[in-house]
Amino acid sequence: MLSSAQITETVHAYLAAINAGDMQAVMALYADNAAVEDPAGTEPKRGADILEFYTNAFAGGASVELTGAIGVSSRTAAFPFRAEIKSPAGSVTIVEVIDIFEFNEDGKVEKMTAHFGPTNMSQRED
Amino acid sequence: MLSSAQITETVHAYLAAINAGDMQAVMALYADNAAVEDPAGTEPKRGADILEFYTNAFAGGASVELTGAIGVSSRTAAFPFRAEIKSPAGSVTIVEVIDIFEFNEDGKVEKMTAHFGPTNMSQRED
Repeated sequence: MLSSAQITETVHAYLAAINAGDMQAVMALYADNAAVEDPAGTEPKRGADILEFYTNAFAGGASVELTGAIGVSSRTAAFPFRAEIKSPAGSVTIVEVIDIFEFNEDGKVEKMTAHFGPTNMSQRED
Repeated sequence: MLSSAQITETVHAYLAAINAGDMQAVMALYADNAAVEDPAGTEPKRGADILEFYTNAFAGGASVELTGAIGVSSRTAAFPFRAEIKSPAGSVTIVEVIDIFEFNEDGKVEKMTAHFGPTNMSQRED
């Protein structure tokens, strides 16, 4: 039985790993058979494609922070966050996202779904 | 092709229907074959059970309001909201929830999943 504290800790560890640029730490939260549907409605990524996806997405650096309460059910977390993603050219894309984590019995994330789209994105020049 | 505006409108219509206590208006947003998993991890409700569920859940009156951005993908909405649910005895339960709507091609909600649990609930005496 997964506790709410374990689920909440995993969400915080995920955001901290992205902020640290530590994609291996991100991967450590996922089950071996995990699927990452980012954004929702696209074909889920699996296996080595997941690491490649995170590496490319955050190549220029990113900062993420929660923007509201984490919804924690018996086997899922839903959490709203703001991501600021830097491009090599110096522009910053700001995205408001709601991620869903579905956990397996070992407390690993076996499905991630990222809910966002064009209405959730804006740009800033630094 | 469903537009972001249609998806956003449906979310606002849903919250307005709950605030109005109009459960038929809630039902009108759902597809005939809809499934409502509330909270996440429980057996989805279908058909007449959905109306019964909403009627019972909000029998004492409820108010709901968005607490952050609606994450809108090509076929889903994710939205954080606070629900204040009155009991007949006068106590108020406050719940921070993140709902996911998955839409069919006609713009009806065919799956709702509500992400919350004990850590998202608090009580107040009015």
